[in-house]
Amino acid sequence: MKKKVRVVQFGVGPIGSSIVRLMREKAALEIVGAIDKDPAKIGRDLGEVAGAPDAPWGIAISADPAAVLEKPVDVVIHSTSSYLAGVMNELMACLAAGCCVISTCEELAYPFHKHPELSAQLDAAAKDEGVALVGAGVNPGFVMDKLVLTLAAAAKRVDRVKVVRVVDASQRRLPLQKKIGAGMTPEEFKDQVAAGVIKHHGLPESMAMVADGLGFALDDISETIEPVIADRTIRTEFLEVAAGQVAGVHQVARGTAGGKESIFMELKMYVGAKEPADSIELTGEPNLALVIQGGTHGDIATAAVAVNAIPAILAAPAGLHSMRDLPLSFLPAAAKL
Amino acid sequence: MKKKVRVVQFGVGPIGSSIVRLMREKAALEIVGAIDKDPAKIGRDLGEVAGAPDAPWGIAISADPAAVLEKPVDVVIHSTSSYLAGVMNELMACLAAGCCVISTCEELAYPFHKHPELSAQLDAAAKDEGVALVGAGVNPGFVMDKLVLTLAAAAKRVDRVKVVRVVDASQRRLPLQKKIGAGMTPEEFKDQVAAGVIKHHGLPESMAMVADGLGFALDDISETIEPVIADRTIRTEFLEVAAGQVAGVHQVARGTAGGKESIFMELKMYVGAKEPADSIELTGEPNLALVIQGGTHGDIATAAVAVNAIPAILAAPAGLHSMRDLPLSFLPAAAKL
Repeated sequence: MKKKVRVVQFGVGPIGSSIVRLMREKAALEIVGAIDKDPAKIGRDLGEVAGAPDAPWGIAISADPAAVLEKPVDVVIHSTSSYLAGVMNELMACLAAGCCVISTCEELAYPFHKHPELSAQLDAAAKDEGVALVGAGVNPGFVMDKLVLTLAAAAKRVDRVKVVRVVDASQRRLPLQKKIGAGMTPEEFKDQVAAGVIKHHGLPESMAMVADGLGFALDDISETIEPVIADRTIRTEFLEVAAGQVAGVHQVARGTAGGKESIFMELKMYVGAKEPADSIELTGEPNLALVIQGGTHGDIATAAVAVNAIPAILAAPAGLHSMRDLPLSFLPAAAKL
Repeated sequence: MKKKVRVVQFGVGPIGSSIVRLMREKAALEIVGAIDKDPAKIGRDLGEVAGAPDAPWGIAISADPAAVLEKPVDVVIHSTSSYLAGVMNELMACLAAGCCVISTCEELAYPFHKHPELSAQLDAAAKDEGVALVGAGVNPGFVMDKLVLTLAAAAKRVDRVKVVRVVDASQRRLPLQKKIGAGMTPEEFKDQVAAGVIKHHGLPESMAMVADGLGFALDDISETIEPVIADRTIRTEFLEVAAGQVAGVHQVARGTAGGKESIFMELKMYVGAKEPADSIELTGEPNLALVIQGGTHGDIATAAVAVNAIPAILAAPAGLHSMRDLPLSFLPAAAKL
């Protein structure tokens, strides 16, 4: 019988909880520890904190990465923050312990442009330890970048890319609905954008991955954040948005090369969104258009992509990777690794 | 300056011609030879045979693989036949010469079930020489299998798969239109199916790749081939199909596990097809549905997938691969490798 892959969850928020519940269903994986610095979670059972129906699991959440990682651990799934600079210590601790790392940190999805020094540092540390790490998630990391490059494999030539993701935030958790400004006045929204609170992270990373993958030398990237204003009252499980209030966020990123717009990426996340979908259009030879009707659910899919990436990260050469160079696949519940 | 990747084309039929025209546009590649046993092509210029606007290229087509492969060659793109047993000598010659191989041979796309011994032989030979080989194309190898597994990466659980590919053969070359029986009587079609002439190769390969990737232990796979009968006169650039004649082929493959249909794959290729598209439906958690509107053009996309796979095969560990374990991407025209 093959040994199970020993996994540790670093960060037991909503995404981390979703990840551990999914990992628990995979025969190939054994959850051997969990790390979170939240005093309300430290010492508690991981299964209980994650809301698992089969809790308790007999795994206590620890605030001490070193203590958790001194045991034999093959892979750490890391989900604590969107910002790479803020999690460098956490990632470096995992690598130093000889663990492969899959992180949902949005800035790690394709960090080579925005954080070249941090990327080099992670790459060197991973190579020193003979392990691999990658940023993974549904966006960035899948629908607006990896899937674009996968579709482009069927093209002889690609001249222009248009990616549109429309998410109905009504189906998402309360923190997400608040994060996109649902229920705010347009003025509050503007202030929160200026304060850096309201923002989906990942468009620059997706843009960079697609540009590099398609060989577009972008000379300008612009990004805008605007509110989606409700045209009627919208009620979700958690909150109510009156007509005239903010229903959510509308972000657009444009990448231009030689004065021509080569990449257009649009993200609309709002409560009450009609016809949610992920769509990709490649203009070239031939033109190719792909639609995921209904779209990919952000939380579910991010947990899924992270867990499904475990076989690929274990098989990858040592170093820092991106989803661009790893095969995406599925980890069957009963599979052995 | 980096050296170019030296490529050889093995088989200069319609697909091989499309491949070399595309390779000619890629700065990273240098076509150093071509092999074909057709007396009408031997000794002629590759660019002229391939119908390239910038012919001649100064590359003579040779009938002698050994002579072409004794020069330094990094990658051979192989496109001579759908049947693996018939091309083993060709593939083994490429491997013995120390070349990586990308083949459009449909049975090589996922050969592990139908041809376990041949697969083991190719894997061993590739490992002996420290090179990698893979079967690549749009179908099998992309729309009905690799793309299914890529989409499944966003799923926590997959219970059932439905893949439907509808191709309007009016836009395809004459040999393809004939191969699907366009213009035949239903009786002629039946005879040609019985003789093994009319058949799209690849459904068992796609079915096996998807089943393995999703962890479905299929206990039965059934495959049917029926004609699509024209309900009106259909004219293409090459031929005319009267109402009541055969417009093309309709193949269905079903994979069952425990008496339940787990995988349904349907391929309709006929002249005058309405609403051509590639569509994938995954039933599970969550349900996911993807559509490529208009579909992926078989010839163009097969050439594209094969050429775009060059960086992945060069980076792959030695041995026999499938698209399941390689990342699909795009090779930009100006990229260096």
